[in-house]
Amino acid sequence: MTATLLTGIGELVTNEVERPIVRDAAVVIDEGRIAWVGESAAAPDADDRIDAEGRAVIPGFVDAHTHLVFAGDRGDEFEARMAGRPYTAGGIRRTVAATRAATDDELLAHGRRLVAEARRQGTTTIEVKSGYGLSLEDELRSVRVARELTPEVTFLGAHVVPEGVDRASYVDLVAGEMLEACAPYARWIDVFCETGAFTLDEAERILRAGAARGLGVRLHAAQLGPSEAVRLAVALDAASVDHCTFLSDDDVDALAGGGTVATLLPGAEFSTRQPWPDARRLLDAGVTVALASDCNPGSSYTTSLPFCIALAVREMGMTPLEAVHAATAGGAAALRRDDVGRVAVGACADLVLLDAPSHVHLAYRPGVPLVHRVLGSG
Amino acid sequence: MTATLLTGIGELVTNEVERPIVRDAAVVIDEGRIAWVGESAAAPDADDRIDAEGRAVIPGFVDAHTHLVFAGDRGDEFEARMAGRPYTAGGIRRTVAATRAATDDELLAHGRRLVAEARRQGTTTIEVKSGYGLSLEDELRSVRVARELTPEVTFLGAHVVPEGVDRASYVDLVAGEMLEACAPYARWIDVFCETGAFTLDEAERILRAGAARGLGVRLHAAQLGPSEAVRLAVALDAASVDHCTFLSDDDVDALAGGGTVATLLPGAEFSTRQPWPDARRLLDAGVTVALASDCNPGSSYTTSLPFCIALAVREMGMTPLEAVHAATAGGAAALRRDDVGRVAVGACADLVLLDAPSHVHLAYRPGVPLVHRVLGSG
Repeated sequence: MTATLLTGIGELVTNEVERPIVRDAAVVIDEGRIAWVGESAAAPDADDRIDAEGRAVIPGFVDAHTHLVFAGDRGDEFEARMAGRPYTAGGIRRTVAATRAATDDELLAHGRRLVAEARRQGTTTIEVKSGYGLSLEDELRSVRVARELTPEVTFLGAHVVPEGVDRASYVDLVAGEMLEACAPYARWIDVFCETGAFTLDEAERILRAGAARGLGVRLHAAQLGPSEAVRLAVALDAASVDHCTFLSDDDVDALAGGGTVATLLPGAEFSTRQPWPDARRLLDAGVTVALASDCNPGSSYTTSLPFCIALAVREMGMTPLEAVHAATAGGAAALRRDDVGRVAVGACADLVLLDAPSHVHLAYRPGVPLVHRVLGSG
Repeated sequence: MTATLLTGIGELVTNEVERPIVRDAAVVIDEGRIAWVGESAAAPDADDRIDAEGRAVIPGFVDAHTHLVFAGDRGDEFEARMAGRPYTAGGIRRTVAATRAATDDELLAHGRRLVAEARRQGTTTIEVKSGYGLSLEDELRSVRVARELTPEVTFLGAHVVPEGVDRASYVDLVAGEMLEACAPYARWIDVFCETGAFTLDEAERILRAGAARGLGVRLHAAQLGPSEAVRLAVALDAASVDHCTFLSDDDVDALAGGGTVATLLPGAEFSTRQPWPDARRLLDAGVTVALASDCNPGSSYTTSLPFCIALAVREMGMTPLEAVHAATAGGAAALRRDDVGRVAVGACADLVLLDAPSHVHLAYRPGVPLVHRVLGSG
């Protein structure tokens, strides 16, 4: 039982309401938890010592939306899209074919590479969805692989209707046997509710079945056009509704009045040239906003939360501090976690030391790998 | 004299007209130069061996536009600009004050950190400008520091007119004594020809003086509005005219008919919310295009050419291969170098191994640090 004093912190982003930023700060870490936070001049002694040498320190990123269990890449499709072809949900089926053809070991090794890549960029908590299996057997091995990567597993059997399968039968399967098989490995259930994927009624049926089976609810909605699914998410007390590009005033009011986080995924807008979601409007209305990577091989093949922060500041009306908050505390709220995403006594000691004097550099120095060191088990 | 065989290259971007991409490739490196290029099945033997394990390999990036000799940062100004304040050339004077207050050792150490940061992201050749000294003494020490960082030093005494100095006297100084003092350390002369900086006539006078002193010519032009400076650059046979956001058809025709490279700097557009330059228009007209970082603390504090490539593909109409070409061979052309920016027998063995099977991933996986290893002395 050795405590560690992390000292010499030039700027500490805590995400605590009373003192969101502490300068000349120190943190004591004991058994993986934060035991003390404050100014370094007042810090207690500890067995070990890490000198941050004036660096900024932030909570580890909480990436609350990824699709890391897959095989193959779709660089050719990306290239064609950049040359003018529109984005649709259809390309998902290509990844389904590659994923089904891969072994469990291949899927796990690939997922581990991406989780490690994310961690090198400061992500210490990560949600991982299934959704490229789309058969009972392949969704089951997808959630099993995901469970090896993270405790935050989401069952997304309702990603798209697989080729050659009757729509109504597939919805029955997802809400029935497939859910039964996958639920033991998952904490969450999610539906891609969008033109080309699932309807509002299908989404509601599947999410209610998941909730009845004990899973928390999340929902993809309003990515490609306006949708009543945002209000459905709030009505079902979803932890998060994700994308939220096309929102009506009623949607914003519902989010502000409910317990559902709006998770924004600027990597997807970057890589599909869709309109940017308006984070400013949501923040001004009092909605809790999360930023996540949406890492997937079709519409957003990035693991970089720093990149998402830079986009959120340039394109979505967030300040750098709001963007960092959304990528840490916001992500934690989207996973209904209070042990991560903040620097407070009792929280997990998941901390990122930046090669920068301030969190502002995450937006001010776009594209530059600024993560110096990542502490914590994640 | 030991030769090294780099083999197992999944995709080699050569930038050679006849064979721009070679699959299953190998390269032999001998005394820092490329001695052989071809398919791995036909590769000769060598003393040492590096296995690229299927990775894509590209020429090292040639960043032909940076301002790395400075002190201080302007994160606060960036934050205010992102909240709505417009970008002007005025903030440069803040960096001038901080740079003048720094010691030579501090400037050199800071510059070295940035050069090392750029190299970790694949940059093996880098141009560095002065321009934050703006007195004879401070410009002289700036070019001396720059000369410690790179052979590609640009004298940019004409960055802005320093505070408290008469405009005409300053132009006399830059084109006279300051040029005399700085020229021995520089290969290039450059002028920031823009509203708030220098006029067309001032630019021409200073550039002609530099050329008469043996320096190659480069020019900042058409960043903030249309300008006759683009045609001036071509008329003076400048190696490069940089920014090129606001171009008339005559400008494009002049560039297509001359020997001047259009160096585009998307990091600046990203961080100032200026309109994107239209690379497609230039490429379609037959203009040689370079991509560079413009790394500086005011308008583009990035060292990341991969980030610039991702922006060029998303926002400027370039294909991934055109963007990689512009950030390597294009940069080399902008420095009138033929020993870098390509993989050909006799060229410098400056090579970047990517954690990716294809160069497309530099745009397809935005923000992700994909540089696995950098070879070559740069």
